[in-house]
Amino acid sequence: MTILEQTVAAIRPADPAALAAARAHQDSLTKPRGALGVLEEVAVRLAGAAAVSPPPLPAPAALAIFAADHGVHAQGVSPWPQEVTVQMVGNFLAGGAVVNAFAAQVGASVTVVDVGVAADLHPSPGLTVSKVAYGTADLSRGPAMTAGQVVAALEAGIAVARELVGQGARCLITGDMGIANTTASAALICAFTGQDAAGVTGRGTGIDDETLTRKVETVRRALRVNGLDGGAENGSADAPERTSAASPAAPEREQASAAGRAVPPLETLAAVGGLEHAAIAGFILGGAALRVPVILDGVIAGSAALAAAALAPDVVDHCVAGHRSAEPGHRAALEHLDLRPLVELELRLGEGTGGLLAHPLVCAAVRVMHEVATFDSAGVTDKEA
Amino acid sequence: MTILEQTVAAIRPADPAALAAARAHQDSLTKPRGALGVLEEVAVRLAGAAAVSPPPLPAPAALAIFAADHGVHAQGVSPWPQEVTVQMVGNFLAGGAVVNAFAAQVGASVTVVDVGVAADLHPSPGLTVSKVAYGTADLSRGPAMTAGQVVAALEAGIAVARELVGQGARCLITGDMGIANTTASAALICAFTGQDAAGVTGRGTGIDDETLTRKVETVRRALRVNGLDGGAENGSADAPERTSAASPAAPEREQASAAGRAVPPLETLAAVGGLEHAAIAGFILGGAALRVPVILDGVIAGSAALAAAALAPDVVDHCVAGHRSAEPGHRAALEHLDLRPLVELELRLGEGTGGLLAHPLVCAAVRVMHEVATFDSAGVTDKEA
Repeated sequence: MTILEQTVAAIRPADPAALAAARAHQDSLTKPRGALGVLEEVAVRLAGAAAVSPPPLPAPAALAIFAADHGVHAQGVSPWPQEVTVQMVGNFLAGGAVVNAFAAQVGASVTVVDVGVAADLHPSPGLTVSKVAYGTADLSRGPAMTAGQVVAALEAGIAVARELVGQGARCLITGDMGIANTTASAALICAFTGQDAAGVTGRGTGIDDETLTRKVETVRRALRVNGLDGGAENGSADAPERTSAASPAAPEREQASAAGRAVPPLETLAAVGGLEHAAIAGFILGGAALRVPVILDGVIAGSAALAAAALAPDVVDHCVAGHRSAEPGHRAALEHLDLRPLVELELRLGEGTGGLLAHPLVCAAVRVMHEVATFDSAGVTDKEA
Repeated sequence: MTILEQTVAAIRPADPAALAAARAHQDSLTKPRGALGVLEEVAVRLAGAAAVSPPPLPAPAALAIFAADHGVHAQGVSPWPQEVTVQMVGNFLAGGAVVNAFAAQVGASVTVVDVGVAADLHPSPGLTVSKVAYGTADLSRGPAMTAGQVVAALEAGIAVARELVGQGARCLITGDMGIANTTASAALICAFTGQDAAGVTGRGTGIDDETLTRKVETVRRALRVNGLDGGAENGSADAPERTSAASPAAPEREQASAAGRAVPPLETLAAVGGLEHAAIAGFILGGAALRVPVILDGVIAGSAALAAAALAPDVVDHCVAGHRSAEPGHRAALEHLDLRPLVELELRLGEGTGGLLAHPLVCAAVRVMHEVATFDSAGVTDKEA
């Protein structure tokens, strides 16, 4: 078996006994039942993932920022020049980016992984070079990656997860850097969820209306050129975020979606993904295989998680959605994965910033399971039945 | 001047120069403009409050849990026996409550302040005894507090703020404990916002439909008995959370609201507040007077902040809404204060738990202002115009 196959085979679903034990434990603690809302679900989820209740405290945390460039940048989908990818990698390594400030705040380590930056990087502490290519090919003109490249990028991500867990990390957080990577994310989200490009393509780090129109058209062309639109011409530009149940066009779109999903996940990821998307998918799979929870950052991670879930459906039980970004595709991805984000502050930066902000919340949720007294032990009278 | 008057007089609005400098600084940092969403606003807000940009890091943080009992408990508005207040105070002091786990997670100190528990408490490290009364009178039968009691409770809160800031706290977080205190909160929110009781009275820590109906009626009676319903009989039980603009009943309701506000704030607070509500209002005023930001917890803090803002409108510039609880009245309070909550996880526990969870987010927002490189300093190319 390849490393990818081994990893996928090692992933287990949430453990039902641990889930039940965690729920029962929550209800015995000195707080009204359910009073911690979503955080109770997070703690229970992590118990299921770890197959033990209470689950281990998800600390220390390690953030990996996977950096790569994108051939589709040539289509004018971003207002930022491509060299900003390598410049921001330098900024991360110098400690000057927002992600560094957030990592310092929450006590997470930062590793930058070059899986596909379109330039040679100087060796530096904190930089892992696992370069698969000098950026992807233009996904709007054919597959972004070869079959070999996508597996290499996935396995680079797996290797980073193994390395960080081996160094003691008990929580992994996804990060990304790659000018134009929200275009690839939108295409992946369309391909894996069956949504139309207009509903899931957003303004990324800030584009005007004209560029947005071009970006939507680029995503549509990418899906068509790569045979991921189900062969149907039924995607309508004015149908953002419709659910199947609410839309007369639903049957057709489901058909398109089903046709889209009939393409094997690796082929889909290679066709319209980025090298960092593939590496993040591998990172998620790698963490889940080791039963270490993975906090997903924004839309890049969300689209990568769709690929990971297509390869190994049980991987989702090991994921926590750190936040929901301002990108419309992120909502679609999280709904498809049935994940509820912890932080919703209209962030649209990437890098791992939203994932980092969620880490103290996840830790707080799990700490409750370890440290809070029960009604019996604290001598507190329970609610009248 | 009394301590309360001195404190109110010392509160300044946000400094316009610091606000402008903070906005300009945000736009120079190596991130797309606005990419940190709500967190950029938080950092700017704290610069205005501190009258300096960047603002000081809001750490260390100190949480104060104000505990008190409520005469209205006799109306059967809570399924929890009143002695749970004192039992939970014991749990806080022993470190066994959720708030202790969260405080440990975010590195905040915890001080418990008895301003009105209906029992004598044993001296204990971490406990400040500033007892004003052994609980309030029943607000549904007349004023909950005397004029002297409400000022004493406010000044107890101011004293705690001064003490904690004197000990080095650079951020204050509100906390509360008091069985039946969501009833007082709902009454305060009605009185200060003009909303109807049915729209702002919630299930607190978990009540059934019958108790909820009784609770709404109790809040209505409290407003009527204390002359805070504007003398109007226009509150309709089926009008939850309507905004003035959307409702044909708006003119009448605004009238009622205006009439309600015509009652002086101290009198309103005394009539339907709790001793911990008054103390929290004082704590907020005390922090603001010292230009130390205050993170508000849930609906108890939100209703206390309405009282504080009625006494000193500029106090709001020094507040951050930590979270929005599941209580419907909290939404009304935050909208009235024009505050956007940072965490929305359906918590309904109180104690200060939601405020604590927001603290790392607020710190992260401010850290960005201190630690992130500018486009110029990092040699990163800015977006094409």
